[in-house]
Amino acid sequence: MSFDVIGKATPKRDGLDKVTGRTQYLHDLTLPRMAHGAILRTEVPHARIVRIDTAAAERLPGVIGVITADRVEQRPFGYAKDHLALKGGPGNRKVRCIRDEIAAVAAETEDIAQEAVALIEVEYEELPAVFDPASALRPGAPLVHEEMGTNLVSLRYQFSHGDVEAGFARAAAVVEGTYRLNYVTTACLGTMASIASWGADGSLTMWTTTQVPFLYQRDLAEALGIGGDRVRVIQPPVGGSFGRGLDLYPIDIIAALLARHVRRPVKIAFERVEEFIASPTREPCVIHLRSAADASGRLLARDARVVIDNGAYVSWGSTTPYVMLSTTAGLYRCPAVRFDTTIVYTNNPYSGSMRGYGNLESTFAIEAQMDDLAERLGLDRLEIRRRNATRTGDVNPQGNVITSCAMTECLDTAEREIARAAAAPARPGWKRGVGFAAMFHVAGGARVYRSDGCGAILRLDDFGKASLLTGASEIGQGSETVLAMIVAEELGIPLERVEVINSDTSVKPWDVGAHASRTTFIAGNAALQAARSLKRRLLALAAEVMDEKAEDLELVSGRVRVQGRPERSLPYERVVRAGHFRPGGQALVAEAFYDPPNEMLSKDLRGNVSAAYGFAAQAALVEVSEETGEVRVLKIVSAHDVGRALNPMAAEGQIHGGIHMGLGYALSEELVIREGRVLNPQFMEYALFPAPDMPEIDVRLIETVDESGPFGAKGLGESGVIPLSAAIANAVKDAIGLRFTELPITPQRVHAALVAARSTERTPR
Amino acid sequence: MSFDVIGKATPKRDGLDKVTGRTQYLHDLTLPRMAHGAILRTEVPHARIVRIDTAAAERLPGVIGVITADRVEQRPFGYAKDHLALKGGPGNRKVRCIRDEIAAVAAETEDIAQEAVALIEVEYEELPAVFDPASALRPGAPLVHEEMGTNLVSLRYQFSHGDVEAGFARAAAVVEGTYRLNYVTTACLGTMASIASWGADGSLTMWTTTQVPFLYQRDLAEALGIGGDRVRVIQPPVGGSFGRGLDLYPIDIIAALLARHVRRPVKIAFERVEEFIASPTREPCVIHLRSAADASGRLLARDARVVIDNGAYVSWGSTTPYVMLSTTAGLYRCPAVRFDTTIVYTNNPYSGSMRGYGNLESTFAIEAQMDDLAERLGLDRLEIRRRNATRTGDVNPQGNVITSCAMTECLDTAEREIARAAAAPARPGWKRGVGFAAMFHVAGGARVYRSDGCGAILRLDDFGKASLLTGASEIGQGSETVLAMIVAEELGIPLERVEVINSDTSVKPWDVGAHASRTTFIAGNAALQAARSLKRRLLALAAEVMDEKAEDLELVSGRVRVQGRPERSLPYERVVRAGHFRPGGQALVAEAFYDPPNEMLSKDLRGNVSAAYGFAAQAALVEVSEETGEVRVLKIVSAHDVGRALNPMAAEGQIHGGIHMGLGYALSEELVIREGRVLNPQFMEYALFPAPDMPEIDVRLIETVDESGPFGAKGLGESGVIPLSAAIANAVKDAIGLRFTELPITPQRVHAALVAARSTERTPR
Repeated sequence: MSFDVIGKATPKRDGLDKVTGRTQYLHDLTLPRMAHGAILRTEVPHARIVRIDTAAAERLPGVIGVITADRVEQRPFGYAKDHLALKGGPGNRKVRCIRDEIAAVAAETEDIAQEAVALIEVEYEELPAVFDPASALRPGAPLVHEEMGTNLVSLRYQFSHGDVEAGFARAAAVVEGTYRLNYVTTACLGTMASIASWGADGSLTMWTTTQVPFLYQRDLAEALGIGGDRVRVIQPPVGGSFGRGLDLYPIDIIAALLARHVRRPVKIAFERVEEFIASPTREPCVIHLRSAADASGRLLARDARVVIDNGAYVSWGSTTPYVMLSTTAGLYRCPAVRFDTTIVYTNNPYSGSMRGYGNLESTFAIEAQMDDLAERLGLDRLEIRRRNATRTGDVNPQGNVITSCAMTECLDTAEREIARAAAAPARPGWKRGVGFAAMFHVAGGARVYRSDGCGAILRLDDFGKASLLTGASEIGQGSETVLAMIVAEELGIPLERVEVINSDTSVKPWDVGAHASRTTFIAGNAALQAARSLKRRLLALAAEVMDEKAEDLELVSGRVRVQGRPERSLPYERVVRAGHFRPGGQALVAEAFYDPPNEMLSKDLRGNVSAAYGFAAQAALVEVSEETGEVRVLKIVSAHDVGRALNPMAAEGQIHGGIHMGLGYALSEELVIREGRVLNPQFMEYALFPAPDMPEIDVRLIETVDESGPFGAKGLGESGVIPLSAAIANAVKDAIGLRFTELPITPQRVHAALVAARSTERTPR
Repeated sequence: MSFDVIGKATPKRDGLDKVTGRTQYLHDLTLPRMAHGAILRTEVPHARIVRIDTAAAERLPGVIGVITADRVEQRPFGYAKDHLALKGGPGNRKVRCIRDEIAAVAAETEDIAQEAVALIEVEYEELPAVFDPASALRPGAPLVHEEMGTNLVSLRYQFSHGDVEAGFARAAAVVEGTYRLNYVTTACLGTMASIASWGADGSLTMWTTTQVPFLYQRDLAEALGIGGDRVRVIQPPVGGSFGRGLDLYPIDIIAALLARHVRRPVKIAFERVEEFIASPTREPCVIHLRSAADASGRLLARDARVVIDNGAYVSWGSTTPYVMLSTTAGLYRCPAVRFDTTIVYTNNPYSGSMRGYGNLESTFAIEAQMDDLAERLGLDRLEIRRRNATRTGDVNPQGNVITSCAMTECLDTAEREIARAAAAPARPGWKRGVGFAAMFHVAGGARVYRSDGCGAILRLDDFGKASLLTGASEIGQGSETVLAMIVAEELGIPLERVEVINSDTSVKPWDVGAHASRTTFIAGNAALQAARSLKRRLLALAAEVMDEKAEDLELVSGRVRVQGRPERSLPYERVVRAGHFRPGGQALVAEAFYDPPNEMLSKDLRGNVSAAYGFAAQAALVEVSEETGEVRVLKIVSAHDVGRALNPMAAEGQIHGGIHMGLGYALSEELVIREGRVLNPQFMEYALFPAPDMPEIDVRLIETVDESGPFGAKGLGESGVIPLSAAIANAVKDAIGLRFTELPITPQRVHAALVAARSTERTPR
């Protein structure tokens, strides 16, 4: 199969406008008569609100209006409907975490709004609080939500497959460990922002950083007590998303409530400290995992227990065990699997979804144990992985059907390519190590909602411009570019003649949203189907115009031509015009809705949740300073089964970005939360992985050409980040012989461990 | 046929936002980094430009860039491609009328831009000029476009049908007259404005006051030398249009050139004086008309010669004879018709299209002669009209096929209703008179372009919201409302669940634009077809869901129900969701393109240019002061064959607005242009018809239910304004016995005529 557009490295189409400063982000937008909003948050993580005095704020010149829970009508929202946007009102007199919103001001400028917020007086009656799951589950512990009578969140993920006990009983080796994963945050350069504007007819238009506009439309309407048909959602370009936009947040509801209150459009945009405090984090958790293998290294059983610090409210982040289970049951063949969770309310900030959510955490635990099992059994670390590798045709314990799989090739590639770099000796005072980790993830959608579909409408105009109205959301991941490529390839027209329209729920067809690495696969299939349908109509029209049979015609490089007689050809836009400019003229429009052949998990968490699955393997070469504990990453090899790389440049870019994010997770980033407060809410203190420290990256794209993917493609948006911290931890172990079970692996932690290890060596037990 | 939505008086859906100040007009919009543009125009109507010095302007702080014809690349544009946006450059060193653009400035604020414009020095070599067609056609007259070798515009409209000479030869009465129609302007409250923004990839987005976005897209691209596929056109709400938005204008091209020059978005908005000087006018003309009738009053022949002062450039306004001919040949049955034009370049401002263009002018002449013929023959003025009235089934001299016609009923209604009011005696010192005029106009599209079609895409979402993506342009005429009504009626869902999307050429399907009263008919039919198609899909889906046969189902008042068993029913949005939220889910989208069964006129100006034709008759009751010459209009009866009144409130509103505009044309408005200069470019001096002087208006909507119209509707957007000035002139004649052949009929003119008439009476010849 040869392609004109697909498979060619293609710069992202929004790139030029972004680097030349032309892009109009949500932050850049203003509306006529727009007011600026700011939010007052609690000063203490757990308290009863006795009194709110907004009088001084209201007197400040330039203030248009102030709202509190007592002045607005609001309804519970969130994954478990346990959350009200403004706290302190009837039936909800409490604040439960440091993020909690108490009042909001609309003013003529942002500065005035902030000044007014500072003038609001709140009297708190502080309450004893719980800041970790263990304390929260102790009898008599303070309750985050008294009305629930417990701090246990009602979500529980329990799964069992095969005879786990028998597996452990007959194992040649069993490893067991407890893995602690901390808070990190997306740290998007574009903070969360929202503009709300009400029409006189009670309709609401929202400009937002959401990445699931149709779910947002429904959820926001519910929170406001209006019909979903009253809400229109506009998604301007965003400066990062990474899962942050999967939930509905108080900022959105408050912007809408403020706008309704002051009868003007209202914009709220987080400043940086607020973004660190109030935007969602990755879910912190503790994974207790046991793995068993026979003497040949074949896995016999796994048993995982996960405890999650849920924070004060349930969000999509609370559902990460969904994915943790998938990894536990699906990363490598494993005949017996048990999985259970304890999800606990605390007075900490609540989490949200974040790129690869759940999977980074469980991969970190599982891949540590693959190394540890190999060590126990005296096996090569790659050999044990190859012996357990998933293969095409497998059906795993959850019932995931593996239609294409290059896991073994990914492992081989990672091994081969890192070997060359690893051969050189370490610098003096540094120890060199290599680590490996593989990855298993959904790559053909993920039916976590009742529909996993996406619609596409495709128009071809008189200038030969194809406008694709897609449900997909561009969140910087390059979806516009790859969808345009799919359309251009299928139609046989130049890429620059395809335009992608994707930012308005009143215009674009339904889509569940940008999550689970699903856009290329799902929206790509929808676009492809629409393009096929449009092409049929175009060729039928060309047959009339050219007096040929439609089946003899093809559309290649922008010309409709008779197969085998390329001299009989017409530019395709002339065919469009011939169809348009005649009596009974027509316009070429086609539409499609693609809903993948996957299924929601059953109550016992079984089902083929994705139409295809992705695999990858990473190798990390590190050096660890024996003196300071510093970990330097020299090289990452990242081999990915992508089905087909539709846009290799974008695929590599996604993986590069994932590796950067993974390096931060592994080595430097932690949102430090103590006693419910965020201690490092600034870029000076929150250590994103520094660009100058980025290692050499060698990305290998392995094409398995999945039968269900558009041109064979599978999703890969999250696969770069998922195994990285596991590979790094394994490389550190390889270098200095120490197993780190908590992230990030900072110089302090390494240094302390090195010191402790030396003292153990000196002190025989 | 009974309706739930159609035929109910329904407020315009954009009305509430407009009256509460929420509407975001183009003037309200700003873009990030947007610069403000201003245009320098010539000081003299005809000159060679010797030198342009922009140095002082460029030095002004806050100025970003200045362009002149020498600094930009531009291409001829306009109906005859005789126009460059910026004058004074290579090959075009001349200014030809007082509107002509010489330079433009982009600055940080509008004030700075205006200040900078005033700092540009231009040295002119003044040229002798021509300000009326007669002078322009004299041998040796100065040429407006030297390269053409003549001031005669190459457009000429010649038509001949039947034996005209024989008609005049055997006539019992012949009347002859010369009718002078002056400049008036649309005087939109929202002035012309344009925002241009270039993408880094060379694509251009324009926010504009156009009413023909797809023609604008093509024409602007040509003027800028880029592909039409590079131009995206956005149409924010406008404060009036009335045909003004039918041409491409220098403002649009200059905004784009400036934005390209300064690499920032640029906005240009006319201030009021500029709007009077530089926005298009109604085409001034002189009509010489002869009409012949037999003794019974039956028309035998008409012969019209029209001379048009074209101004400096050819525009759509230059094509008004197209419509003048249609009236001459089609308003009343007339077996022999001759028509010819002389269109002449002058150094006056050029015209554009304006509501009812061509038709007001010729109707004024023809209806004067209907009265005059009746007088000569001693017939009743209505009787002569009834005897010549067009009837259903007629095919007129141009070949227009009259599929529905209530002209006689319109005349009868006007006569009956005015009679009651007219019975009262005039006040002392005033003479009372009644005048009648009828109207003939296209009402089912008008194929003046190769396609007269419009597309529609209709989506139905999970909330039961139907989004109609229509090609139609909302220019304040109420198209959003009536299209939503059509969709709601056909689908059987509540009106407020239908949303209309219509302002972005990258989203909406093709449409030729808002002109010729075509939107309800053409876009309405497209919306109706899409709704029918969607309903079929919805009922097919409901058949599955409800386990019934699709043909047994109906969708009524928002419920799908089994015919005859209304208890077996489901809300339609539940059917949508059932189709969506299931394996292999689908989304409901339908599309249609409606191109009416009409034809372009042949070279000899014959053809059935519209799929339906509209008719109306108006009666005016006036009092004329014998002392001051003032004409007071007491009552207008306006009876219209509208096919079917889909939204009677909007239909009446259109007619009310047309009557107001017609009263201004008849009695008060004139854009006074002398020696090529506009002498009254302000509302203080340009006399819009005052609201307090508005007469009682009695609108009667007569429903003929045209077979091709959506639910039987025909267009009526222009029909209120067309016959009004003729009816007023006839009423004045009835009151004081004097025939006015020039508009407006001001107190000065009436007074002068009264004085002259008295002196004639006193002085026997």
